[in-house]
This record gives sequence, structure tokens and C-alpha cells, in this order.
Amino acid sequence: MRFDVLTLFPEVIVDACNFSIIKNAIDNNLISINTINPRDYTNDKHKKVDDTPYGGGAGMLLQCQPYLDALKSVKISDNSQIIIMTPQGKTYNQQMAKEFSKRNQLIIICGHYEGFDERIKKISGALEVSIGDFVMTGGELPALCIMDSVVRLLDGVLGDSESKENDSHYDGLLEHPHYTKPREYEGECVPEILLSGNHEKIKEWRRLQQFLVTQKKRPDLFEKFIKSNISEYDKKILKKYNLF
Amino acid sequence: MRFDVLTLFPEVIVDACNFSIIKNAIDNNLISINTINPRDYTNDKHKKVDDTPYGGGAGMLLQCQPYLDALKSVKISDNSQIIIMTPQGKTYNQQMAKEFSKRNQLIIICGHYEGFDERIKKISGALEVSIGDFVMTGGELPALCIMDSVVRLLDGVLGDSESKENDSHYDGLLEHPHYTKPREYEGECVPEILLSGNHEKIKEWRRLQQFLVTQKKRPDLFEKFIKSNISEYDKKILKKYNLF
Repeated sequence: MRFDVLTLFPEVIVDACNFSIIKNAIDNNLISINTINPRDYTNDKHKKVDDTPYGGGAGMLLQCQPYLDALKSVKISDNSQIIIMTPQGKTYNQQMAKEFSKRNQLIIICGHYEGFDERIKKISGALEVSIGDFVMTGGELPALCIMDSVVRLLDGVLGDSESKENDSHYDGLLEHPHYTKPREYEGECVPEILLSGNHEKIKEWRRLQQFLVTQKKRPDLFEKFIKSNISEYDKKILKKYNLF
Repeated sequence: MRFDVLTLFPEVIVDACNFSIIKNAIDNNLISINTINPRDYTNDKHKKVDDTPYGGGAGMLLQCQPYLDALKSVKISDNSQIIIMTPQGKTYNQQMAKEFSKRNQLIIICGHYEGFDERIKKISGALEVSIGDFVMTGGELPALCIMDSVVRLLDGVLGDSESKENDSHYDGLLEHPHYTKPREYEGECVPEILLSGNHEKIKEWRRLQQFLVTQKKRPDLFEKFIKSNISEYDKKILKKYNLF
């Protein structure tokens, strides 16, 4: 999979890709990452990429020409997706991560400080994406969040496929609690059942905890789950504990 | 404001803080950033910080001792907040950014690859925070997103206070579209009203666009806004365009 990131701060992307799974995925030729700086494409003699807003108001706006010409320079492959990071975008979630992970190419347009001239969104046809209902200085960190969440879904990136399936949000529920050594720490003990060696009971306890944690912390997700196509195994547990 | 970040990858935090507003805020002595590596606090002779899960299953888990001892090493000031990045946490939003920006100190606990032993959350008393319903490899990028969104709200960080108030999510609505030079680009024109010079009409048009964009792209936010304490000015516009 190929990532092309349009950004005025390519160093932020390059530096962060030097770590952890993104670096491993690059080293194993599973992904490639390319940055394009719109400043290298501006026609302005002072290398300017922004100007004041029509209609007045504070701040500066990123201009069409450098961004759209930078985008034109990207070689677009089959099955690619162009996204633009904006707080007005569709809220990113695990479902979108799964969809993006099936693409051959993800092109991510990042702003910084200022907003985009609205026509950049329209002419590029990019999907507007937001990582959440909060405002950041630039699109670079959100873009890296998306890249990380997509890369870890690619075949061959994570060692053990089971760890993906146990993730929070994988099937719409939060994770169950986890415990490791020691058995007791500052008076807090590991639940007895996890030490029992009874795999069937541990499996049921963990699934029940997923239901209870999700119901408590994210009732919105639990409601969605209850209305979805629930397996017979899950139904049995939900009924046994009066959750259904 | 002081940030203390517990992470096994301090370089990710340090590198990203070398750019843009976070760097400027450090240079202007408005914030300080400190990283603490739990690996420096482990009692394990091989410097291990993780172990296998009780009850079986894939993956490894981050252990209590290195994380909680690393946390104990942090000098806690008045009016501080400890948060732990987990997908099970409360979904981060602009309201939380505003609350965090009033603190003197934000201590952020990041995991990486593996989950936390549940007792780290319980014993630390940290607020569990998630930046969204998607899964990432580590807490570092989400922590940086939070830091960026908090820092830009601090007095003296952004040059012009008006640009904060025009942000998406500032008052629960998305931003209106923005346009800058040129007037026409690839056949797409700036709306006439923005060229009119009539400030009162421009103000009304922009507010109306905020309502329309939010209603279209985020009906959940628009519904919340409509039920909130709306100003007389907003009511007049909403009624005029039959949105109320």
C-alpha cells in the first residue's frame, strides 16, 4: 500500500514514520510513504501558499493553486482514495480504517494553522475526514493516526492475527480487562477465574466483561451491538446475565 | 502548563514537539514537556515491561510495576490531571480540550502494542481517554493530538484570538466555508456576497452557512445546538431561513 501525504510540514510525517509498526512495514516493503509539499508547487514568487479570506476575518487561508497542483503531481493508482483532513469531515472510525486498508493507495491532504479554500475540497473530490470533535493546528497528527490504524490492519504487519480480533471496536464492543503478573499488586488481585485454567469459563467471563464494560462506558456502542446480528453464543451469555 | 508523558517511545513525543505551535509554546516558556520511560523504572533485570496475560490469549500486557513506579516519579503539581490513553476511554472532544487547558499539569500515560494490566488504570486513578472509535498501535500519536489541541487554547499561543472562536466545534457548530484569492479557479467562483463589502450581510451569510453545513454533515451536532441556549441573533437567522 502506498501513502501520499500533502503537507507543509513533511518532516512531521517522515519523523513519525521512523518508529514502530509504520517503520517495520516500510522496512518489510509492505507500505511506502511519500510526502509532497504544496510549497514546492506554488506559482507565487515568494513561495506563498496562503492569502487573506474574502469577506474579511482573522487568519489566512490555504490557496487552491499550490494544493491542487501538488495533488496533480501524485501518480494515482487503481483503487486509491483521496482524503482531506478537516474538522468538518466524516468522523473516522474502525470501519473506515478497514475500508481504507483495502485500498492500494491513500492520498491524504493536510492543512496547517489555516483552513482550506473551500474549492480545494470541491475540485479535488477528496473525502473530508475528521478524527474527532476537537480542533488541532494541522492535519499531520490526524493523518498519522489514520496511517497507523490502517497499517496495523494490513496482512503481515502485526505478528499475531488474534491480537487484531481482540481489539476494542473490532466487533463494535470494547475490550475486556487484561491482567498479567504479578497476581497481586498493591492489594489489587487478578480475578480468580483467570487463574482457574478453565478455558471455556474464561472465554465466557471475558465476553461478559466486554458486554459489561461497553454497557457502562459506551452505552451508545452497546445499544448498536444489541441491535446487530448477534451470534447464538453471545445471545446465550447476554440472556444468562439478563443483559438482553 | 506542564506535560508529563509516560511512554516507551519518548522519541516520538520529542520529535513531534519540535514543530509548529508546540515548539513555539516551548520556546516562549508557555509550556514544558517531559517524557518518562517506564522501561527506566522496571525492576526486571532484562528491562522487561510486559508479560503474558493471565487466562491465556495472544499478545503481551504492560505491567503494573514499571508504569506505576514511573508515575510515582512525576512531581505532581496543584490542579493536575492524569489521563491514560485507551480505546475504552471517554471520547475526547473540544469541551475536554478546554477543561484540560485550564490545568497546570497534564500527565499522559501511553501504552504501545499491548494493552495495560487493568490495575494500572485502577491504582493510578487516571481518567481513561480515547480520541475516537478506532484502534492504534500506541498512545503516543493520540497523546500528541491532545497536546496540540490543548496547547492552541492556551493564552499567548495563537496570535489572533478570533481564529479560535471561528473554529469548528468552538460553539458546537462546524465552520462556514472559506475562500481566498483568486476569485475564480478552474471555473469555481467565490460566492458574490463575500465580495460585496457588506459586513452585516457577510456575517449573516457565514452564520447561515455554519447552520447549513452542520445540519448536512453532522445532524447530531445540529440537533444538540438547536436544543442549547441559542442567542437572539442566531434565532433570527434560523427562523428567517426556516431552520428552527
